[in-house]
Amino acid sequence: MEDKNIIYGRNSIIEALKSGRRNFNKIIISRSVRPDAKIDKIKEYAANAGIPFVFAEKEKFSKYNEYNHQGVIAFVSPIEYVELEDFIAQHKENTSLVLLDGVEDPHNIGAVIRTCVCAGIDGIILPSRRGALVSEIVEKTSAGAINHISIIKVNSPVSALQKLKDNNWWVIASDHHADNNYYDIDFLNMNFVLVMGAEHAGISRSILKLADFKIKIPMLTDFNSLNVSAAAGIIIYEYVRQKLTAGRKYEQK
Amino acid sequence: MEDKNIIYGRNSIIEALKSGRRNFNKIIISRSVRPDAKIDKIKEYAANAGIPFVFAEKEKFSKYNEYNHQGVIAFVSPIEYVELEDFIAQHKENTSLVLLDGVEDPHNIGAVIRTCVCAGIDGIILPSRRGALVSEIVEKTSAGAINHISIIKVNSPVSALQKLKDNNWWVIASDHHADNNYYDIDFLNMNFVLVMGAEHAGISRSILKLADFKIKIPMLTDFNSLNVSAAAGIIIYEYVRQKLTAGRKYEQK
Repeated sequence: MEDKNIIYGRNSIIEALKSGRRNFNKIIISRSVRPDAKIDKIKEYAANAGIPFVFAEKEKFSKYNEYNHQGVIAFVSPIEYVELEDFIAQHKENTSLVLLDGVEDPHNIGAVIRTCVCAGIDGIILPSRRGALVSEIVEKTSAGAINHISIIKVNSPVSALQKLKDNNWWVIASDHHADNNYYDIDFLNMNFVLVMGAEHAGISRSILKLADFKIKIPMLTDFNSLNVSAAAGIIIYEYVRQKLTAGRKYEQK
Repeated sequence: MEDKNIIYGRNSIIEALKSGRRNFNKIIISRSVRPDAKIDKIKEYAANAGIPFVFAEKEKFSKYNEYNHQGVIAFVSPIEYVELEDFIAQHKENTSLVLLDGVEDPHNIGAVIRTCVCAGIDGIILPSRRGALVSEIVEKTSAGAINHISIIKVNSPVSALQKLKDNNWWVIASDHHADNNYYDIDFLNMNFVLVMGAEHAGISRSILKLADFKIKIPMLTDFNSLNVSAAAGIIIYEYVRQKLTAGRKYEQK
């Protein structure tokens, strides 16, 4: 079981330590690793938190060679997923969620989570059937961001969205057939959940039916093929732009 | 040498064929591949263009197993890079360029190129010393986008930027120490080159000195770590937003 919950790479381990949201069993470091500021930081955190910090021969790491571990691995408790009901109960106003529908590439999931944390998105919903849940690769590619945001696991994205709608949330779906461009809608003064689909399949029909707004990213050539993490960044940061410039609109009046 | 210039994957091959910008030596397809609409399309393009289309045993593909080739590989002429001087001579007004400084991950380069093509950016500058040039992985992760945009290879990004400045171009640098947010500058009515740096190192100092504008993407938490392809997407699409909504500003006057 232990192997199922590892974090590898200095930055990811530091972020998980800083967050205080994971239980560390132990951290192992290869004897062949040259100490640096980040290793020192990991040692310091570990010492303060009473986490065993073990040196090991290089050979011990061979079974983890599929990971780009840089000679440091932590064995930790899994991410604690947040229940949707609890999240709804705790967030009443101007809350932002992102739901990934059928996105399977863990690198993309990790990159979207990073963007969500940078942009102050309140939570991310990952369906447990379609798409990938948080794996070691997601943890690594998120650069530890998964420790700084609520991750909500749901069995059915359709039921989850219906539940959110019943609780005064608006569903915004990214759909390249949409009439509206993403910057034509007002993201402010509401609870919203932005649904992003997989690159080729897009968002499933049953989800599109639930959408209160459908938005597209305009294409200036006939090459319609944004990477999902770029697409998510573009839309999510339009929300940030609106939020940070909202005062200016009032000034102009 | 032939092996140096392969394109793998159906979409990448179709895009390269459509573009008419590559010389195809031949296309080989595994006998074990089930024909589908995309394979038919490749066959049709190949027949029309007089490109040999060869069936091969699965074993022939074993040496390409590092690539996710889906049983189809094309042997082609390399990308033809555009000379900066030629590009400048041919583009006088409202032209947009993106320069990647020290970005090494071919997946990121490919994703940025896709975004550039979707957004109608006119060209992309890749330094040949720092960072990666167009490789098979860049070609594949760009989903064929590299065939739809001018790719300019330069030895020195500093000299390239100086040359652009001397020719009435403005240099916009993405720098997380900047005072201005990316949406605070006006991208319109000028020739600009947007410089994006590698995630950890950022843009080199010698380039920052040449910047006419420095812009940052605001962070709403203390987690400052956007993936470069997400960051590029956010800034490039602000330019698109300004371009497509420019008329509205005039209406309001």
